[in-house]
Amino acid sequence: MTAPTWKYENFEPAGSAIGYRITRKLDEVQSDFQKIEIYETTDWGNLMLIDGAVMLTTRDNFLYHEMMSHPALFTHADPRQVVIIGGGDCGTLREVLKHPGVAKAVQCDIDEQVTRMAEKHFPELCDSNHDPRAELLFDDGIAYMKNAAPGSLDIVIVDSTDPVGPAEGLFNKAFYESCFRALKDDGILVQQSESPLVLLDLIKEMRGEMRKAGFITFKTLPFPQPCYPTGWWSCTLARKSGGFDFRQQDAAAKMFNTKYYSADIHRGASTLPPFVAAALGE
Amino acid sequence: MTAPTWKYENFEPAGSAIGYRITRKLDEVQSDFQKIEIYETTDWGNLMLIDGAVMLTTRDNFLYHEMMSHPALFTHADPRQVVIIGGGDCGTLREVLKHPGVAKAVQCDIDEQVTRMAEKHFPELCDSNHDPRAELLFDDGIAYMKNAAPGSLDIVIVDSTDPVGPAEGLFNKAFYESCFRALKDDGILVQQSESPLVLLDLIKEMRGEMRKAGFITFKTLPFPQPCYPTGWWSCTLARKSGGFDFRQQDAAAKMFNTKYYSADIHRGASTLPPFVAAALGE
Repeated sequence: MTAPTWKYENFEPAGSAIGYRITRKLDEVQSDFQKIEIYETTDWGNLMLIDGAVMLTTRDNFLYHEMMSHPALFTHADPRQVVIIGGGDCGTLREVLKHPGVAKAVQCDIDEQVTRMAEKHFPELCDSNHDPRAELLFDDGIAYMKNAAPGSLDIVIVDSTDPVGPAEGLFNKAFYESCFRALKDDGILVQQSESPLVLLDLIKEMRGEMRKAGFITFKTLPFPQPCYPTGWWSCTLARKSGGFDFRQQDAAAKMFNTKYYSADIHRGASTLPPFVAAALGE
Repeated sequence: MTAPTWKYENFEPAGSAIGYRITRKLDEVQSDFQKIEIYETTDWGNLMLIDGAVMLTTRDNFLYHEMMSHPALFTHADPRQVVIIGGGDCGTLREVLKHPGVAKAVQCDIDEQVTRMAEKHFPELCDSNHDPRAELLFDDGIAYMKNAAPGSLDIVIVDSTDPVGPAEGLFNKAFYESCFRALKDDGILVQQSESPLVLLDLIKEMRGEMRKAGFITFKTLPFPQPCYPTGWWSCTLARKSGGFDFRQQDAAAKMFNTKYYSADIHRGASTLPPFVAAALGE
């Protein structure tokens, strides 16, 4: 038993870092796309890094996974067909499948090794991988959305790494055009949109590209996420038309458990702090 | 010009760390109570550490200072007499004095050097130090509250460091009894209450001590604060009686600027996430 040491992620674009006290490295694999490492921490359960960037910890991933799924699904009137691009740790898939109305949820992550690592080191996130409504694909999400049948989807969730490396192509007009085409008229695109404090430009740019692809209305919801830079994160929802009023009664009466998400939290996250609203021109 | 380096705070109780990319040390003083250091960062303006713990950065301190003051002041019907215990950087004082109805705001920090460092390196926080309604004392906050005239105060804000070292005595029944006695019947005590993710036990313990001192009702408001452990922080309000409905119309119509606080943000923060509510028995 060696003494715990500290492992840091220096996040260069923000000039800030997050770190964890770790006891040992549990696993490491160099996949065709990236290096995946798993560490055991003293207080946060297991920790996954991809190319040195913190992806998730056992302790706090519920914040991200709940906020990437439930706001979009409770905003849509009747979400049945869902596609998750990325999301290889399967945590978003698990949340999506808590909605009994969902008929099918496809998870398309380019890197099978992320899911294999999640099955080993975050098994609780993979609870629903064998749900008959789930389909796990290990393929290029850009190509998948390009080939998706027009008007076939209710929700597309882009649960990716930062816009560098394999995920870069998930943040531009061409990809959003594929999403636009594949979504039904009342469909919703939702994407992780980084820190509202230090990466406001990225949110603006993302919305700009979505707009060029045809999306009309946007909603950015902030939420706490300690393992990501600044500890404050966001998702951005986009629609072809219509607003973001959500099914508040259904959310309040939901028959499944969540730790962070609630109708009240959803309502609270729907109003941006003044400095974020001003930067986004709202 | 040396190359930037990284400076980390390892937060032992949570097993997590926060760091900044720094260009140089601007200042350092060993006061009678603690070591205060100021660094220049590449992206966060100036950074103050006390005994190695991050106190504030130029870029993100508005979150904490606004949330330590405006929710309490807009909850009270007519706050006139305010005392800040700690708060030596003067940022909370500045926010309090934005309320035109405040007749007097006393800031009592034990360490004059904190204020001297703030004046030099965070001058924007000291904008209101010469407001005729402001009184800056450098004295023991515990003694100050013990000697405060009974029923003389509307708001007491405990803006302190963590409950170790000089601030330890600000988290127990004896201190809260002094606050209880000094507050009017409709007064409000507000205290920074650490991270709702990893320090829930501290919030529970704090409420327990406040209750023993006579406080009846409590409200914990979470907010983002990137420079503190987990990036997610909270303040806890306590009253002798009555609830925490706030002056929503006044907050919405306020004549001063805030970057994070708004009536909507206040309303949103008033509902705790399910896992926090459950832990606090709400």
